[in-house]
Amino acid sequence: MFKKKSFTTSIVVRYCETDAMSYSHHSNYLKYYEVGRLNWLKKLGFSYFKMEKNDIILAVVKSNITFRKPAFFEDKLKIKTTLLTPPSYSLEFQYEIFRDKILINEGYTKLIFLNKKNNKPIRCPIEIIDAINNY
Amino acid sequence: MFKKKSFTTSIVVRYCETDAMSYSHHSNYLKYYEVGRLNWLKKLGFSYFKMEKNDIILAVVKSNITFRKPAFFEDKLKIKTTLLTPPSYSLEFQYEIFRDKILINEGYTKLIFLNKKNNKPIRCPIEIIDAINNY
Amino acid sequence: MFKKKSFTTSIVVRYCETDAMSYSHHSNYLKYYEVGRLNWLKKLGFSYFKMEKNDIILAVVKSNITFRKPAFFEDKLKIKTTLLTPPSYSLEFQYEIFRDKILINEGYTKLIFLNKKNNKPIRCPIEIIDAINNY
Amino acid sequence: MFKKKSFTTSIVVRYCETDAMSYSHHSNYLKYYEVGRLNWLKKLGFSYFKMEKNDIILAVVKSNITFRKPAFFEDKLKIKTTLLTPPSYSLEFQYEIFRDKILINEGYTKLIFLNKKNNKPIRCPIEIIDAINNY
Repeated sequence: MFKKKSFTTSIVVRYCETDAMSYSHHSNYLKYYEVGRLNWLKKLGFSYFKMEKNDIILAVVKSNITFRKPAFFEDKLKIKTTLLTPPSYSLEFQYEIFRDKILINEGYTKLIFLNKKNNKPIRCPIEIIDAINNY
Repeated sequence: MFKKKSFTTSIVVRYCETDAMSYSHHSNYLKYYEVGRLNWLKKLGFSYFKMEKNDIILAVVKSNITFRKPAFFEDKLKIKTTLLTPPSYSLEFQYEIFRDKILINEGYTKLIFLNKKNNKPIRCPIEIIDAINNY
Repeated sequence: MFKKKSFTTSIVVRYCETDAMSYSHHSNYLKYYEVGRLNWLKKLGFSYFKMEKNDIILAVVKSNITFRKPAFFEDKLKIKTTLLTPPSYSLEFQYEIFRDKILINEGYTKLIFLNKKNNKPIRCPIEIIDAINNY
Repeated sequence: MFKKKSFTTSIVVRYCETDAMSYSHHSNYLKYYEVGRLNWLKKLGFSYFKMEKNDIILAVVKSNITFRKPAFFEDKLKIKTTLLTPPSYSLEFQYEIFRDKILINEGYTKLIFLNKKNNKPIRCPIEIIDAINNY
C-alpha cells in the first residue's frame, strides 16, 4: 500500500525576491516548490541533473496555489513536499510552506516524465519507483 | 448584466527566462499573467502604480495553471486576459496564452484589494467598478 | 574602417521586476542588456536561437554597470546597444539606457564565442563578420 | 587602521536559475553578491530589513563582474564578501565565488546610503561604522 512521503526543506527569502509591496513576489512560490521537489528527489537518491543527462525531463503540467499570507525579506520558510499518489506517468506533489509553524502558502503540482529527444511522455523510471517503495 | 471583458497583450520570451530544458521556466507564466492583468487595468484607464500610491494593493490569493505546451526563447506570445465576474472584494481573471493561435497555457487568478497600511481587505474602488461597467 | 553599430530597443519595466525599494532590481539591467544585444544581433539577420542550435554559444565574460538613476514599474526604457570593436574571438558591447532622453544606466559587456560541445573558444562566425561589415 | 573584513556565505544553484545553456544565468551573480553582502551586514549585527524601516536604503551605483567559469544546477557555491574601504557615504565590496576552492567568478559593487524619503545621499549610520571597527 502506498504511503505518502514527505520531506521538508528550508529557504530564506532573498532581497531580490521582494517586489514593490515588499512581498516575496507570488511567482517565487513555484520556484520554492521546485526547490522542495528537487530536494525531495535528491533525498531519495536521485539527482534531477543526472536524469536530464539521461534525456529524461520532468515537466510541470498543472499547478494550483493558495496564497494565505505574504512572505517578506529574511523570512525563514519551511517547504513541506509530499508525494500524493504512486508514481506512474506522472508525479503529483503537495506543498505546504510554513513560517514559524504558520501555514502561509500551499499548493499542488502535477509533473510528467518526457523523453527529451522526442518530447513524448514516458513512464516513471523504475529506479524512482523502487526508491519510493523502499524509502 | 455583466459582460466578460477581455484584453490581449503581447510579449516575446526573453533568453533570461529560459531554463536548462530550453523552456521558458514555468514560474514565468505568473509573471506573464501579471503583465496581461496590469495592461488590462491600464486599458480601462487605471494605473496600478497610482493605486499603490493611494495605499490600495491587489494581492494574488489563488492561482491555477495548466501548462499545455512549452514556450521557447523568441516565441511571440499573446496573453488574453478576461475578467470573469463583476468586481467586489476580489477580481477573478482568466488567462489564455497563444503562440500562432495555438493555446499553449491557460490559468486563473483571484486577487483581493487590501489597504496597504493595515493589510485589511477593502472593496474594489468605485472608479474601477464604473470603468468596468462603462467600458 | 570599423564604424560602431548602434541599435535601440524598448522595454517597459514589469511589476515582477520591482523590489522592496520599488526600484527595478539592479540585477535586471543585465537582462535588459541581453534583450538589447540579442535584438541587435537579430537586426543584423542573426537568430541567437539558431546559433545555439549550431552549437555556438555566446558567453558573457565581463560586465561593468553604472547605475545613475533607478527605474520604476511602468517606466518606458530605451536600450541603446553599440558594438564597440570589430568582432574577432569576442564581442564588446556598450549599453545606454534612457528614460525620457535621460541616461539612467550605462554598461559594458564582453562576450566570447564558445563551441557548445567542448566549451572551447572559437572565432566569430564569418556570417556575423560579413553582416556587420555589410550592415 | 582599517582592516578588510571578509565573510563567506554558501548557496546552491537552483534549477530556476539555469538558462538554455544550462548555466546559472549571468544576471544571478548580482543576486548572489547581494545575498553575500546582506549576510555580511547581518553578521555584523545589522538587519537591512530594519535599516529600510528606518528609511535608510543602500543603492548599488556601480558593479563590475568577471565571469571565469559557469555554474550549473546543484553547484554548491561559496561567496566570499569583503569590505574594501572604511565606510563613509558609500560601501565598496569585493566578491569572490568559489566552487570546490576554484574561483569561478569575482566582482565589485559600490553602494551608497540614501534617505528613502527624499532620495538624498547620507553618511553611513554611526552604528554600522562602530560595528565594523569593533568587529
